[in-house]
Amino acid sequence: MTAAPPRGAQGLLPEGLSDRLPPQAEASARLARKVLDTLAAHGYDRVMPPLAEFEETLIGRLKSARAQDLLRVVDPVSQRTLAIRPDMTAQVGRIATSRLAGAQRPLRLSYSGPVVRLRANQLRPERERLQVGAELIGTDSVAAAVEIVNVAIEALQAAGVTGITIDFTLPDLIDTLAAGPLPLSEDEIESVRAELDAKDAGALVALGEGPAAYLPLIEAAGPFHAAMEKLEALDIGGALASRIAGLRAIAKPIGWDITLTLDPTERHGFEYQLWFGFSIFAEGFVGEIGRGGSYAIVRPDGSEEPAMGFSLYPDPLIDAGFGRVEARRVFLPIGHDGEQAAKLRAEGWQTIAALSEGEDGAALGCTHWLEGGALSAY
Amino acid sequence: MTAAPPRGAQGLLPEGLSDRLPPQAEASARLARKVLDTLAAHGYDRVMPPLAEFEETLIGRLKSARAQDLLRVVDPVSQRTLAIRPDMTAQVGRIATSRLAGAQRPLRLSYSGPVVRLRANQLRPERERLQVGAELIGTDSVAAAVEIVNVAIEALQAAGVTGITIDFTLPDLIDTLAAGPLPLSEDEIESVRAELDAKDAGALVALGEGPAAYLPLIEAAGPFHAAMEKLEALDIGGALASRIAGLRAIAKPIGWDITLTLDPTERHGFEYQLWFGFSIFAEGFVGEIGRGGSYAIVRPDGSEEPAMGFSLYPDPLIDAGFGRVEARRVFLPIGHDGEQAAKLRAEGWQTIAALSEGEDGAALGCTHWLEGGALSAY
Repeated sequence: MTAAPPRGAQGLLPEGLSDRLPPQAEASARLARKVLDTLAAHGYDRVMPPLAEFEETLIGRLKSARAQDLLRVVDPVSQRTLAIRPDMTAQVGRIATSRLAGAQRPLRLSYSGPVVRLRANQLRPERERLQVGAELIGTDSVAAAVEIVNVAIEALQAAGVTGITIDFTLPDLIDTLAAGPLPLSEDEIESVRAELDAKDAGALVALGEGPAAYLPLIEAAGPFHAAMEKLEALDIGGALASRIAGLRAIAKPIGWDITLTLDPTERHGFEYQLWFGFSIFAEGFVGEIGRGGSYAIVRPDGSEEPAMGFSLYPDPLIDAGFGRVEARRVFLPIGHDGEQAAKLRAEGWQTIAALSEGEDGAALGCTHWLEGGALSAY
Repeated sequence: MTAAPPRGAQGLLPEGLSDRLPPQAEASARLARKVLDTLAAHGYDRVMPPLAEFEETLIGRLKSARAQDLLRVVDPVSQRTLAIRPDMTAQVGRIATSRLAGAQRPLRLSYSGPVVRLRANQLRPERERLQVGAELIGTDSVAAAVEIVNVAIEALQAAGVTGITIDFTLPDLIDTLAAGPLPLSEDEIESVRAELDAKDAGALVALGEGPAAYLPLIEAAGPFHAAMEKLEALDIGGALASRIAGLRAIAKPIGWDITLTLDPTERHGFEYQLWFGFSIFAEGFVGEIGRGGSYAIVRPDGSEEPAMGFSLYPDPLIDAGFGRVEARRVFLPIGHDGEQAAKLRAEGWQTIAALSEGEDGAALGCTHWLEGGALSAY
């Protein structure tokens, strides 16, 4: 893979906001289309939420959305603070629990569009990125997880992505164990989380006898089947039996061409996921290209509705040159046969019609030109 | 046509910002795809400018963009005022004269995305709308106008739009005449424009002898060929000969199924168009669904580059129910044959897989269900 080309525009654009040029813009659109087509084939209906909303609506709907991530908008019309959406999942949750509150469950919705974060980070310098995803609302069952994970994989493969790795996690694992077989105090829970995140065995043991019982979890990570056996071997009174069975059921239908891993205590970015989460990676690309899992949508009355979904953030793939297609492009000289040109377009050719004498078809990116009714290669 | 359904969300969303739900969201995406596919077939390469830019970049690039139309963004990172794009044409102009300044001309670019205006108006209550368009940069010749108008028509027809009317205008007509055969003072130019916009013959005559000479222009409007004859009959020393020849050349290849009209003095919304402009209407829809024409892009060094383009704003069509397609959707009971389901999807069916016993396929929008390997209609 080639390195990402710079996307800045000589100081004309704000940091982290950039133009996508040909051919990457086309590759990005093509990838989104393939993903959305796969989602539609599985019954996910498209929704299009607005670019900006009231700040409090954007951060109130999901348990962990953060106001400090928002690019705020001054709205003289409503006299209130709006924000550009940092994420579309929360918007889809709002739609599901307001205008589509009465729609039959499970409710399947898909979406695609730009999202904007206030600040970029070193790994991802872009503040605006494309989000494409699906949400399955009304259930967070194992069957829902099976569907979401497999639809995500199918969508990426339909778009031509290969070398996919799915990394499973159990975001509320520590809470579950701490409330059951491996009790921890509130303070200890935070410390244990931090040391498990850091995978620091020594620090974990140093926290005391209770926290030290979590030590085997550090080892229960890596290639899926070996890590699952370690997780099962923890032997903690069956507290994890349903989680383990769920993970096995989710993994079962996944094809041999997908690499599966388990990182049961991974929480980074899964702050709002509940029992199940997953990250998606593609060979040759640094960082995840998508993620998903189970979560709860807060309804207007404060009650919660279970949901399961995934989002893809394919910009790193596009930046690295993924998905470019060589166009077959033919130059049409002045006075060409319009019907023949239309026929070529219907056959998948792109045509460039000369607007004046002396234009250079090759310089205009054409691979062929039309002359005397026949195609010639440049 | 049915009336536009309300798109508000019970006070959850700011005025003028709304969700698109199924099936309109899908219809909107489908229309944009068809238009973009047609543009790609004619060699227009996709670009994707960012959602927000520096305010001064957005308003400085085209001659008439207005700061009061902008929804401003507070950017703590750049410490400058950004604005959400109100229009993508100016952004494409910036791209053409910066990162693509060295690209061969004529340069053909296409784009699609949401744009946001600060204030809605009564005819168009939405502040966010979809803009899809094409820009042909480096020329504003008659040949360029022929291509742009005909590609716009072909794109709309590919999307299924019928009953199309193209209304031609000559945005700088008054300036041309005032500087030539029908002299006016600066003050008179403004007054003549206002009265021609109002089509107020009495007021025009009352302005004096110079302005009164513009009276025949009020009559030179309506069905294209009759109005063109009236425009020609003005007999003002051939000052309009090239314009008239240009309009005739543009109209010539347009099919009989398109209604052509001329409104030579129409300027509303054409403030930045130069010699040629056009509005697009579709039967059954109030207001225009697109517009285009010739214009000048201001380069970073202050010089100008000629260009020709069009933009479609298809939201009113979608609101009115245009483009909905009945889905063929089949319910897959628990334990269905996965390979058969994949085959159905490959044949264009949407499948809804049961996640638990007792789900009602019909309530989930399915038209059929799969049983014993065969499809049955609900």
